[in-house]
Amino acid sequence: MTASADSLCVPASPAPTRVAMVMRHVQERVESRNLCAGKRLPSIRTLAQTLEVSRSTVVDAYARLVAEGVIESRPGSGFYVGTQLTPFSVAETAPGLDPGSDPVWVTRQSLLADAASLKPGCGWLPETWMPEQDIRRALRTLSRRPLAPLTGYGTPQGAPALRQMLSHRLGERGLHVPAAQLMLTESGTQAVDLLCRFLLEPGDTVLVDDPCYFSFQAMLRAHRAQTVSVPYTPQGPDVQAMRTVLAAHRPRLYITNAALHNPTGASLSPEVAHQVLVLAQQHNLTIIEDDVFADFEHHPAPRLAALDGLQRVIYVGSFSKTLSASVRVGHIATRPEWIGPLVDLKLATAFESGHFSAELLHTLLGSGSYQRHMNGLRSRLADAMGQTMERLQALGIRPWHRPRSGMFLWCELPGALDAGRLSQYALQQHQMVLAPGNSFSLSQTAQHFLRFNVAQSLNPAIYSALEQGMEHCARQRS
Amino acid sequence: MTASADSLCVPASPAPTRVAMVMRHVQERVESRNLCAGKRLPSIRTLAQTLEVSRSTVVDAYARLVAEGVIESRPGSGFYVGTQLTPFSVAETAPGLDPGSDPVWVTRQSLLADAASLKPGCGWLPETWMPEQDIRRALRTLSRRPLAPLTGYGTPQGAPALRQMLSHRLGERGLHVPAAQLMLTESGTQAVDLLCRFLLEPGDTVLVDDPCYFSFQAMLRAHRAQTVSVPYTPQGPDVQAMRTVLAAHRPRLYITNAALHNPTGASLSPEVAHQVLVLAQQHNLTIIEDDVFADFEHHPAPRLAALDGLQRVIYVGSFSKTLSASVRVGHIATRPEWIGPLVDLKLATAFESGHFSAELLHTLLGSGSYQRHMNGLRSRLADAMGQTMERLQALGIRPWHRPRSGMFLWCELPGALDAGRLSQYALQQHQMVLAPGNSFSLSQTAQHFLRFNVAQSLNPAIYSALEQGMEHCARQRS
Repeated sequence: MTASADSLCVPASPAPTRVAMVMRHVQERVESRNLCAGKRLPSIRTLAQTLEVSRSTVVDAYARLVAEGVIESRPGSGFYVGTQLTPFSVAETAPGLDPGSDPVWVTRQSLLADAASLKPGCGWLPETWMPEQDIRRALRTLSRRPLAPLTGYGTPQGAPALRQMLSHRLGERGLHVPAAQLMLTESGTQAVDLLCRFLLEPGDTVLVDDPCYFSFQAMLRAHRAQTVSVPYTPQGPDVQAMRTVLAAHRPRLYITNAALHNPTGASLSPEVAHQVLVLAQQHNLTIIEDDVFADFEHHPAPRLAALDGLQRVIYVGSFSKTLSASVRVGHIATRPEWIGPLVDLKLATAFESGHFSAELLHTLLGSGSYQRHMNGLRSRLADAMGQTMERLQALGIRPWHRPRSGMFLWCELPGALDAGRLSQYALQQHQMVLAPGNSFSLSQTAQHFLRFNVAQSLNPAIYSALEQGMEHCARQRS
Repeated sequence: MTASADSLCVPASPAPTRVAMVMRHVQERVESRNLCAGKRLPSIRTLAQTLEVSRSTVVDAYARLVAEGVIESRPGSGFYVGTQLTPFSVAETAPGLDPGSDPVWVTRQSLLADAASLKPGCGWLPETWMPEQDIRRALRTLSRRPLAPLTGYGTPQGAPALRQMLSHRLGERGLHVPAAQLMLTESGTQAVDLLCRFLLEPGDTVLVDDPCYFSFQAMLRAHRAQTVSVPYTPQGPDVQAMRTVLAAHRPRLYITNAALHNPTGASLSPEVAHQVLVLAQQHNLTIIEDDVFADFEHHPAPRLAALDGLQRVIYVGSFSKTLSASVRVGHIATRPEWIGPLVDLKLATAFESGHFSAELLHTLLGSGSYQRHMNGLRSRLADAMGQTMERLQALGIRPWHRPRSGMFLWCELPGALDAGRLSQYALQQHQMVLAPGNSFSLSQTAQHFLRFNVAQSLNPAIYSALEQGMEHCARQRS
């Protein structure tokens, strides 16, 4: 693909040599940890016999592996697996090269963009849509409060008064869970991460939706989990495909958004919800239901956790998307016997979870202002949804589905344009952050899709930049 | 050991039967993940041949493993490794049973204790020692600030102005690191956890001090790492022992506190620091230097990170111990090329790291009040250290070493009393939280030691409770 490769007159893919074969043999055993760091490698003679190659081939392979730092030579003693650390990377390629293979591309670009930048691909609301005055008031209230939340740690499970309030709120939504079955975390993201640690061993298989929130993929990679996916439909996961995937791969865990799915904005239908739970029962599947967009709903869709009574479904919520990204509090609702070990795991890996943030959230939820804020936010989002759909359709960008509420709109580009290229062009030419479909797609089959955040899509400049970018991509292709 | 076992007239350890042998064979392969969840087991005939037992033995073993949920039978298809989740636990035994095998025992008890409880084993300062008025003032300042820190996310790497300030502070301590090589995290604990994720693969070997901060052990367990340890001396790790351990186990990573070691309060001498770095060079060892107690020092001891120039040492700091447990900000200083992938990993597993807390910390550090607070805190701690040593010695509890500063005092009980039993008795009888030595000791050789926090040891009631507990334990033993 690059100019230098084109100009070299070498065969496109030479047959692998014996040396390369030996190198690959060793490398695979090192990568799979069949050969651990510091372990002695087979002698040159032994490996030559095993692989039926000459000794000089093994000598050559070992020498190259030493040069690459994979193995080390200790004169007089032999060859050993290298102990050089190879740090973990969530991205498969160098960051920024290809949004499709870099699961934090959209997040990174959105956080790096300055306030004036266009970012219709961003995953959160504009700062100005948040309840600024309420937060200022809550801060002043807290500055007059007793000492503990300002300087001390909280209880391991999280502030009892806030858990009580959350229990009440969840009950109104049909999820009856006592405060004792709730644990506070630093954020919704940390909650899912903690649950993965709790439930998964390296190499376990996990089911996700396709498309799904890209951070699930990045996080599962960090947990060294295998991932399989099931297509998402406007009613929830494709149940027929799920049955096949469950039988073929036997995942232990399924991570999903039950309501206002990210990125499609679709909601689970009662029928699909029931079928998913039946399948989960049959295949002994545990489910994490990430519900961070819950409060955006006008009319609540069914929750897996409510139907299931928290038997095999673990529920995760947070207020980062609706109240403030700075109020870092998430929560987990799960079976009573899992709370104790989860608290221990939190203490071991994150210590305590933001006593001050919990107090701030408790103050904000308790004042009644949150309800008023959310009522206003929902109608503002509904307006933005209508406007955005209209403007996108004028450019030939078709919504896959009309969400009932929330901020996300999942759209297909016309003329099979490539969303990854369009996103890179938009960033370079217009400092505009788009969210290309393949960032969300494990099967990499969403190359013509983009996720729009309607609250971030009201500036008309977005649509002229989009039009220009689409023309550029169409020209480039032809 | 238990009464029911004593009363049964069975041989103490019967020879393992063939069925048990087959069960163990399967179980070991499942636990080591040689046989993964959902994978088909060898047929009864095949396994009988492999292990040279009768088919009925295998049938019996498989039936028992099905009953235990280790494997599943699928009629007509064979036997498969079970897919039942077995959640992870940081404690080896049921929580609360034995502080020595439960690495979050001290933390959990300290957080659960109410404000009036005696907790000389607690790992942090009393709330009243923290700069309450400064924090109240900073909150009011923030409540009048522009919008972003109240409602929005920060930059991926963390607030540039705070990183700049930290860079300057670290420079004064001899660690010259530009702001671009600093990353903010949610806390010091999260920083170490993130680095473990970044540097370790499951099964890797990590070196810790013996004794060391118990959360390191719990965290490494959560990372499925192997741990080896080196004895800690009043000058730092025992270099001779370290040489032997490095050669024998070839750990890839060493996690330590360079100054004011937890739990001993000892500081690294320049000579030992240099030797540790030479050994690290020879054995290709990466080091995480956790320096959360730095600001307690009157005169800074050498830092590994400063000597090494951040080549193989990664530096972690936070203000939770000196300013407020609620101001959740940690920081990592490392090689420039590791910042990008570390930021990505943070985005994937924790998202953003507390924009609001960063602003609060920046306000507090910038006001000059932190320096005044720390000056006062250091002399208050020095007084408390003197008083505590005197009172403990009056009970025959001997300090292992007189720390130059800080809050920790590592002490040996007289008459070889068991610190674990004493801690359990103190909790039950006096609701007093002690920190027994074996919580900190990988080799479990600190059974006669306790860690005292001098700032939490000023109440005379602690010493009468200790005296009573020691008498009780001595009586029980004789």
